[in-house]
Amino acid sequence: MLNSLENPQTWQQSLLSSFVAIAEAEYGDFVAIDQLLAASSDQKSLYLLVQHLAQYPHSKMALANRLPLGVIDLAALHQLPTDTLGYHYADHMLSNNLHHLAAQPAASEYEFIDTHIRETHDIWHVVTGSPINMLGEIQLQAFCVAQLQLSRFWMALLTKNLLKSLIHDIEVADSYMTALTNGWLMGKTAQCLFGVDWLSLWETPIEQVRSSLNIHTVN
Amino acid sequence: MLNSLENPQTWQQSLLSSFVAIAEAEYGDFVAIDQLLAASSDQKSLYLLVQHLAQYPHSKMALANRLPLGVIDLAALHQLPTDTLGYHYADHMLSNNLHHLAAQPAASEYEFIDTHIRETHDIWHVVTGSPINMLGEIQLQAFCVAQLQLSRFWMALLTKNLLKSLIHDIEVADSYMTALTNGWLMGKTAQCLFGVDWLSLWETPIEQVRSSLNIHTVN
Repeated sequence: MLNSLENPQTWQQSLLSSFVAIAEAEYGDFVAIDQLLAASSDQKSLYLLVQHLAQYPHSKMALANRLPLGVIDLAALHQLPTDTLGYHYADHMLSNNLHHLAAQPAASEYEFIDTHIRETHDIWHVVTGSPINMLGEIQLQAFCVAQLQLSRFWMALLTKNLLKSLIHDIEVADSYMTALTNGWLMGKTAQCLFGVDWLSLWETPIEQVRSSLNIHTVN
Repeated sequence: MLNSLENPQTWQQSLLSSFVAIAEAEYGDFVAIDQLLAASSDQKSLYLLVQHLAQYPHSKMALANRLPLGVIDLAALHQLPTDTLGYHYADHMLSNNLHHLAAQPAASEYEFIDTHIRETHDIWHVVTGSPINMLGEIQLQAFCVAQLQLSRFWMALLTKNLLKSLIHDIEVADSYMTALTNGWLMGKTAQCLFGVDWLSLWETPIEQVRSSLNIHTVN
């Protein structure tokens, strides 16, 4: 999903317009999110992101193999011991009424970055201890900015939430900034989560997974 | 300098417009900054900011007395021993070709907040170890957000810089986020700088001033 506008000034204007549109939209407006993703996916930053990820052997291998997670049986994972990653992930998905949408094999590295991050987004929620609420989303967005540091998209989502708070609800800005800082520091400390073989970790205790990935959750 | 638009939706739209305008302006465009300040200074957030500051005795006293710093003789301060706050402040001002503009006595608490922050801004630069460059400004903006947590203006300046980086120069976003985090954590740890009697501290070693205010500079 590459931004097709070749002229830098044109796509920068398009990105600003998409940013303003999502800042004016209600939270969770997926049309606005998809428009922002399209506007923020330029060739240069995606190239830089691939270069960044390729420095980690497991991320580089994932980019080469481009394997989707495939179908995930949440009901079966929910039968695992309650301390396992698999149980925690299934419980998160079921209790939030979320469904894992198995991705198609990706045709390119750029497409794989998009599909892999979508497919694993809720696993990142779980392992970083970021709940499905505003502060959890901001913490995870800052974590993503730290891990995928050259992604205009995650930076835009995070920045949009700061803008919404300063315009509409300055009293929450303090908690937003705290969540941002926690997510950023956690993302900088943790190993690169892109391309981790989550399927092999379902039966591992979640605290052991966090420890092995150097993820220090807040509280 | 209160935003005179009473209807919340109208001034929120005005604030968003000013935000977009400053995001599109060159760095350091003082017309755009003043417009943002006017648009972000609504009654409610200023009232909340006064309540927030009034919890600190020295800040509360400053709000009551509303005394400007007055004329500052930079050449004289520059003759103080080189470890003093006064020397460091004068050196910062002289080497950056900056002039201290003595403020007029303020007619209200709201006006004093504006003039006091303008008058002491470069002292904050010096005591927080934030140089006059992009990363120093971002660090100090995040420090201000932490200290003046209900200020839409400082939150807007900080957010604007994140937006500019994600649109125009994603390769600097990582350093911007690091500066933001450092400033935020420093601002949360430090004592409230609003209303500190700087005039009594010129001859004190700067490290002693930082220590007494619990300011832990980076590096």
